[in-house]
Amino acid sequence: MPQTTAFTAKLNELIQGIDTAVLTTVRPDGSLHSCPMASHAADEQGALWFISRDNSEKVEAVRTSQQVNLAYADHAAQRYVSISGFCELVRDHARAKTLWQPGYATWFSGGPDDPALVLLKVDIQHAEYWDAAHGRMMSVPGR
Amino acid sequence: MPQTTAFTAKLNELIQGIDTAVLTTVRPDGSLHSCPMASHAADEQGALWFISRDNSEKVEAVRTSQQVNLAYADHAAQRYVSISGFCELVRDHARAKTLWQPGYATWFSGGPDDPALVLLKVDIQHAEYWDAAHGRMMSVPGR
Repeated sequence: MPQTTAFTAKLNELIQGIDTAVLTTVRPDGSLHSCPMASHAADEQGALWFISRDNSEKVEAVRTSQQVNLAYADHAAQRYVSISGFCELVRDHARAKTLWQPGYATWFSGGPDDPALVLLKVDIQHAEYWDAAHGRMMSVPGR
Repeated sequence: MPQTTAFTAKLNELIQGIDTAVLTTVRPDGSLHSCPMASHAADEQGALWFISRDNSEKVEAVRTSQQVNLAYADHAAQRYVSISGFCELVRDHARAKTLWQPGYATWFSGGPDDPALVLLKVDIQHAEYWDAAHGRMMSVPGR
């Protein structure tokens, strides 16, 4: 669901400078798997987007369970963000172009229009964060 | 289940120097939550142990779903480990003493014998890792 502008601004402040998010998905057997994903700022609606190959195990997992977690960690600052959300698989060439970085060409020789590229859109259900200065903080969007 | 010595040695090599693990649990509503946990080396059977308060939300989550993921990230080295496992709640004062670090006194004024302290024991079902030199690697214990 669309988030408030204030929520999106706060979220982007929290994840700023953390280049890699850890995405956890639930496989059909119920086991939880995580993998590193290149991180991007939240969009204007507060959703988080990632690029993946459409035959990856995480994409297969999302086809059967949309529940995911995104963890952002800045160990040096002892800053941690946990995002619980619903993940949707999206084909959107315009969005893929805005997320594209030159290094991705290693995996997608066809660029942002590569047919093997799929977008993961995570709509946020709940967010929590911790930092060294404040301990545990909590931010709950209005779902 | 008990792991081989070789598996345990490899696991400890992978997580060495990563002080904080990210633990993801499934809450009763199916949502996935993660939180930072002080990391310890695997024990002689290949299990991973963590210290928690017994009234925490992660402990509540584990009471209804034992499936967890542990993520270890060393961003500088681009090294990531994903561990899928089953989490058990254990009261074991001898084990708590071996895991104890002075900083924990902030949360447990009674020390390793504090009645609010519970141990999380994670038996490993599946482990995967990535590093900058090799890309995705995989290690599957014999479950």
